[in-house]
Amino acid sequence: MNAHIITIGDEILIGQTLNTNAAYIGGRLADCEVYVKKSSVVADDEEEILKEFKQCWEDNDLVIVTGGLGPTHDDVTRQCVVKFFNTELVQNKEVLEDIKIMFGKRGREVTKINKEQALVPKIAKVIRNSKGTAPGYWIEKGNKIFVAMPGVPFEMKEMMEDHVLPALQKKVSNPEFITMRKTLQTTGIPESFLFERLGNLDELLEGAKLAFLPSQFGVKLRITVREKTEEEAKNKLTEIEQRIRGKAGRYIFSREEESLEEVVARLLKERGLTISVAESCTGGGLANQLTNVSGSSAYFERGIVSYSNASKVEILKVIEDTILEHGAVSLEVARQMAEGVKSISGTDIGVSVTGIMGPTGATTGKPVGLVYIGLCDDKVCTAKKFMFGDDRLLNKQRTIQAALDMIRRHLLGIPFNE
Amino acid sequence: MNAHIITIGDEILIGQTLNTNAAYIGGRLADCEVYVKKSSVVADDEEEILKEFKQCWEDNDLVIVTGGLGPTHDDVTRQCVVKFFNTELVQNKEVLEDIKIMFGKRGREVTKINKEQALVPKIAKVIRNSKGTAPGYWIEKGNKIFVAMPGVPFEMKEMMEDHVLPALQKKVSNPEFITMRKTLQTTGIPESFLFERLGNLDELLEGAKLAFLPSQFGVKLRITVREKTEEEAKNKLTEIEQRIRGKAGRYIFSREEESLEEVVARLLKERGLTISVAESCTGGGLANQLTNVSGSSAYFERGIVSYSNASKVEILKVIEDTILEHGAVSLEVARQMAEGVKSISGTDIGVSVTGIMGPTGATTGKPVGLVYIGLCDDKVCTAKKFMFGDDRLLNKQRTIQAALDMIRRHLLGIPFNE
Repeated sequence: MNAHIITIGDEILIGQTLNTNAAYIGGRLADCEVYVKKSSVVADDEEEILKEFKQCWEDNDLVIVTGGLGPTHDDVTRQCVVKFFNTELVQNKEVLEDIKIMFGKRGREVTKINKEQALVPKIAKVIRNSKGTAPGYWIEKGNKIFVAMPGVPFEMKEMMEDHVLPALQKKVSNPEFITMRKTLQTTGIPESFLFERLGNLDELLEGAKLAFLPSQFGVKLRITVREKTEEEAKNKLTEIEQRIRGKAGRYIFSREEESLEEVVARLLKERGLTISVAESCTGGGLANQLTNVSGSSAYFERGIVSYSNASKVEILKVIEDTILEHGAVSLEVARQMAEGVKSISGTDIGVSVTGIMGPTGATTGKPVGLVYIGLCDDKVCTAKKFMFGDDRLLNKQRTIQAALDMIRRHLLGIPFNE
Repeated sequence: MNAHIITIGDEILIGQTLNTNAAYIGGRLADCEVYVKKSSVVADDEEEILKEFKQCWEDNDLVIVTGGLGPTHDDVTRQCVVKFFNTELVQNKEVLEDIKIMFGKRGREVTKINKEQALVPKIAKVIRNSKGTAPGYWIEKGNKIFVAMPGVPFEMKEMMEDHVLPALQKKVSNPEFITMRKTLQTTGIPESFLFERLGNLDELLEGAKLAFLPSQFGVKLRITVREKTEEEAKNKLTEIEQRIRGKAGRYIFSREEESLEEVVARLLKERGLTISVAESCTGGGLANQLTNVSGSSAYFERGIVSYSNASKVEILKVIEDTILEHGAVSLEVARQMAEGVKSISGTDIGVSVTGIMGPTGATTGKPVGLVYIGLCDDKVCTAKKFMFGDDRLLNKQRTIQAALDMIRRHLLGIPFNE
């Protein structure tokens, strides 16, 4: 199956917005064995959009469009769909109901312009939007598929995951071979070190493929196998995973899409443990990440964002002399912060971070990127030094990731320093 | 002058790399009065690339291509250029010299594959590459321009700034018109309400253009004017901005790219005020956002993530009976949390959030999405109710955004409830 992705919007053409939608859709289609032949960005201009629809529809089995489905004057995608498929607009009751419920919940009146969003092309099956008012369209005609979705990324993604991809998967199954993928997520090891650790890839993979997908959070390893049966494919994936784990197991925190904070949440809940955190440089980011997981109140008791030294002393009972002697960014203060927050909150584990995120704040011997992470439970009270880079926001993210990984390793009994 | 940007590369189609090149080129062309009509991404496939060259060359005055000029087997752009313009490869002495110097500096021998990079299409003027080995091409034919550059972003950018843009500016200097843009960022009002509030757009804009760019953080308004002189364009932008401000001024938090937390940071610093926050449902996200701004220690004193009721009582001195009577998610508790954190930290302002982010945690009369935000200074102590949606992470982001906007409005004396 050949596909073309059309993104509609002047803001993308003139570089005000990065085309993350096309990247996301391209990636997900590739996962599903759909060949993305081309992708294009078109201005909010009816004539240009219609021309592009025509060309892409001729050349491909699948056309996916995002953008231009909103309620304002520069949203012209819907009328283009109507003209292109020579159809008409009809009111969709489910969509109207969705819109009324959404506005009702927020205590807002449904305006005329919102109601108009329930008008959809007659030829289309509606893809409902639980996060916004504009529905998506699924149109099948003469063995070809046309999909239109709003350009708001989180609305589009939900439609892709819940409706478009499952429907496409049914259409594209190839009976001769089965392709299966597995992704292992690593953290705490740079791509080149991981690559070296895995050694001879031909021996490791025996014909399968391995992609290294690095990001600031770690490196994902995506294994792709192509076998004659599902069982063979599954077995091969398992074999390769075991070989990789034998060489770099401690860096792998999850399979598939479980995030590091979800892994930590699961481990804490399984063990019935509670946690509290004391943060300086991450400014609440660690607590924020831990509470992104639904049900976090089962294990997360409290967090202290002790940005000022006064707050470290007053709330966390850090000894003032320790700050004067070693500085707020030090192994000693990290340890006392972790101990302090554990003690005042009565949790099983206390975790702390203190560091210099930059671009300002460096002093002699304490450069931007220096971070200490502390961790105490009833038996141990320890802290570890890290050196990150120059970029403030990246440093915050990396520190949060490292702290979460330290909790994970602690819960699994994996040493911190390897 | 109409332009089309072609990006070549499988890695962009399957979403492994974001198309930052097209965004950058689109932005710079728009700055230079070149109208970017379309942009496309094509696979590393000779046939597809040639087809795209043909189509784009017919439809446009300018075609800019990036990618596929490197030395390996999947770089096919050069041979496509040769075929498309029916020309041949010739060795370029300057490029060969550049390559020899570059490798000499790094103490490396020039290999055969590197030398081949000095072979360029005869029809092309060479754009030299000071940062890599692949040169760019500038081809003029029958009043049209074709530019090809390597896909490595910093190599491409240097070629654009030093060669392509200056050359284009000479061609396009249209003495007749000047295009200018201004972006206003709003928050706290849905797109459709903003649209209605602005009323008759023809009267408002008098021939200028207005784009609505929505995201979960708010709606950006981009005004585009086209006038005979720079002064006229500036004046027109100012007039339109004033008319928009007259109708929706309180929702506009910044011009151009300043984020809401940066606006809040600037206002706090200008007024010499300090702030502390007490968070329940946002779990540290508000403190995290406030401390994303460099230099935040000047105004941010501490944050308390009082997730458990015990922590609300122990640290923030919320009265236990108030929690029992009204529940932890209530106007009264929000007010006491704001008052409490202000009092223990000695800051000028205390802000609090308490709510139900979902998917679990709803009770009778307290649905998922219900949030109270409190704000106290030395004179007022108030709280406001909000209703957001069903999605946990979106609810956290929206609550953080609403709290930041409440601080902004407080500092500017704009009422919260309109």
